Amino acid sequence: MNPAELRIDGPRLWARLEALGELGAVHGPNGERGCARLALTDADRDGRDLVVRWMYDLGLAVTIDAIGNVVATRLGTDPAAAPVMVGSHIDTVRTGGRFDGNLGVLAGLELIETLAQHGIATHHPISVALFTNEEGARFQPDMLGSLVYVGGMLLEDALDVRAADDGARLGDELGRIGYAGPTPCPAAAAPHAYFELHIEQGPVLEDEGITIGAVTGVQGISWTELTISGQSAHAGTTPMRLRRDPGYVAAAINTGVRALAIEMGCTQVATVGRCDFHPNLVNVVPATVTMTVDLRNTDELLLQQSETVFAALCDQLAAEEGVTIERRTLARFEPVEFDAAMIDLVETTAIRLGHSTRRMPSGAGHDAQMLGRVCPTSMVFVPSTNGLSHNIAEYTAPHEITAGADVLLQVVLATAVPC
Amino acid sequence: MNPAELRIDGPRLWARLEALGELGAVHGPNGERGCARLALTDADRDGRDLVVRWMYDLGLAVTIDAIGNVVATRLGTDPAAAPVMVGSHIDTVRTGGRFDGNLGVLAGLELIETLAQHGIATHHPISVALFTNEEGARFQPDMLGSLVYVGGMLLEDALDVRAADDGARLGDELGRIGYAGPTPCPAAAAPHAYFELHIEQGPVLEDEGITIGAVTGVQGISWTELTISGQSAHAGTTPMRLRRDPGYVAAAINTGVRALAIEMGCTQVATVGRCDFHPNLVNVVPATVTMTVDLRNTDELLLQQSETVFAALCDQLAAEEGVTIERRTLARFEPVEFDAAMIDLVETTAIRLGHSTRRMPSGAGHDAQMLGRVCPTSMVFVPSTNGLSHNIAEYTAPHEITAGADVLLQVVLATAVPC
Repeated sequence: MNPAELRIDGPRLWARLEALGELGAVHGPNGERGCARLALTDADRDGRDLVVRWMYDLGLAVTIDAIGNVVATRLGTDPAAAPVMVGSHIDTVRTGGRFDGNLGVLAGLELIETLAQHGIATHHPISVALFTNEEGARFQPDMLGSLVYVGGMLLEDALDVRAADDGARLGDELGRIGYAGPTPCPAAAAPHAYFELHIEQGPVLEDEGITIGAVTGVQGISWTELTISGQSAHAGTTPMRLRRDPGYVAAAINTGVRALAIEMGCTQVATVGRCDFHPNLVNVVPATVTMTVDLRNTDELLLQQSETVFAALCDQLAAEEGVTIERRTLARFEPVEFDAAMIDLVETTAIRLGHSTRRMPSGAGHDAQMLGRVCPTSMVFVPSTNGLSHNIAEYTAPHEITAGADVLLQVVLATAVPC
Repeated sequence: MNPAELRIDGPRLWARLEALGELGAVHGPNGERGCARLALTDADRDGRDLVVRWMYDLGLAVTIDAIGNVVATRLGTDPAAAPVMVGSHIDTVRTGGRFDGNLGVLAGLELIETLAQHGIATHHPISVALFTNEEGARFQPDMLGSLVYVGGMLLEDALDVRAADDGARLGDELGRIGYAGPTPCPAAAAPHAYFELHIEQGPVLEDEGITIGAVTGVQGISWTELTISGQSAHAGTTPMRLRRDPGYVAAAINTGVRALAIEMGCTQVATVGRCDFHPNLVNVVPATVTMTVDLRNTDELLLQQSETVFAALCDQLAAEEGVTIERRTLARFEPVEFDAAMIDLVETTAIRLGHSTRRMPSGAGHDAQMLGRVCPTSMVFVPSTNGLSHNIAEYTAPHEITAGADVLLQVVLATAVPC
């Protein structure tokens, strides 16, 4: 069979997604089937055990490293060649779905099974990686496993991280579930290339009726917490001209950053997700308001420009209303750009397979952005129904899953070079 | 002595305010001396007992009615004449001050002691009333005692009200503290007139350097709770054009009602005091926001106009953003206008006594608005430092207290007619 015509077995991949999704399953009132498999919990161990069993069943060489990353490798014909790696994570948020992360790992197993079934060897080895604690729902930072894997965080520091919920030490939890492995981390050598198939987690593909996203990079992120202090006052007895109302200022910042994002256009987004009034009473002008502003852009200079305009807006409103605004940076990451050739490969492969496609940035973080530091990297996105993710209603239809996994297979084959 | 030259004893009134303020005292970290004397608690009983003892010490005839209102009367020379009544309340909010309410009651005792000291009789009797549960902090509605007193609420319904904190029945609590009295309520006859001295509870007098407010009425109140439902979404992966963000809509309503109040001018105020985002996470466009809008005006037609503009703003924003807005009226009271002759009397008396004065509406509710339903009524306001009330830092300086009580004395004397 011509390797370029090879396709994965959609129902087999779907069945693995279903089986893994049963571990930590959460059922919603309207038939939703979600997943709560937080990193390094018993549910995570059960999920890892199942995936590792599948890896052994496929005859792969499985290594577990010191931060718990699992890498399963199918040998290539050239013993000296670096592996083409695919991967993702299987931990979820507390009200997660069955596709986020899981898809990238299980599509890797599916493409290896497809190659084995058709007796197709590759020049480069092919590895499937399952990275520890991508979500950051239990241990901070997120993408911790892949970060340590590429040398971006010291192993000892990562092992000492404490859980947000119960204060458990990451290294202890790793040992407890049996995934403190012997393979050194960071990895001794970089992969030849890295690809990750993932659900979009946003509404763009669905909205535009497109099946495959060729991911160009990850947006830069700027998170700021504002504490706005004014003068608590009686809603009836305080004329408008004598108010110093932090609630009004918070509202003006919210509408201001919305206008800023729309005016900047392109990939700029701005979100006020958290907002707390104190004392939060119907007839009292609030004394203080805390709120967060989340700014993102794929272009570092534009992101900086949005931060400058936002800061000036705060200063202006504070002066006009007579309030003070304390600013605290909660997170700041520069944008990540994926490899141009790998993006091209994803795009042209999707077109060759007859799928509608578009280039797009990722608005969320992924293990791929860590691997992108050490090897040519790109991602394949498939649609998220209603744009939902981190939600038990998260869903991607079987034909979309199959399309994404087919693109992943062909991209990996082209890079690993069939013999 | 010419009755028109009579003045109260400022230090004596201040001493009574201090003594009553010790019952339920709350001390703040910066020397603040507040008061927590919730209606029908043990602290309220202690406060009532002290005030009633003072009433007896002054030789007054004391009645306690079925809702716990206490009325102490100094006889006039005409046995058929209705009393000129002064009064207020001595219950406080949980973090209250020592002046709100207490001042109106104790200034009444002070003016009677002043008349007695100088042997001045009046044609009309003079009554000092202490009304039950004005604050509404423990039992709803507020101004309950004066409302029942004027026949605005059935006694049986009022006695059956349950406490917001511990669910206790008002009638049981009244009996428990010994203030379920034998005098029928509502009152058999209306007073000849009613005057209430009160702290402003707002910043206007202080801001303008004025000592006495001649109160023209009480603002009408319109409270609305909004529940805005949109689409929860990922802050990174959801482009601005695909958002249905209830947080943005809440913010636009906040800035919109601010603009509305400023444009309408005069006494119109608009306040967003309560605002809750769900799920309230930094990187999630909220799914729902609940918020309140408090609109007030002294003119019923203008208040209705503000409600109309506000409703249209909600409809417009809901359509533009694709969110739904559920509106619920939490409270709606028409404005109260006090008696023109009584307002004139307060104003001309303040001027005659050499005090700076201005006419002003009350932004807060008072027992006077209930008494205004049955007899000619007005109020005397004195400044609140920093506009603070319902706050342990509530303060009015001794010379301002004395000025207000002098105006009250002369207003009462003019109405009760000295012999």
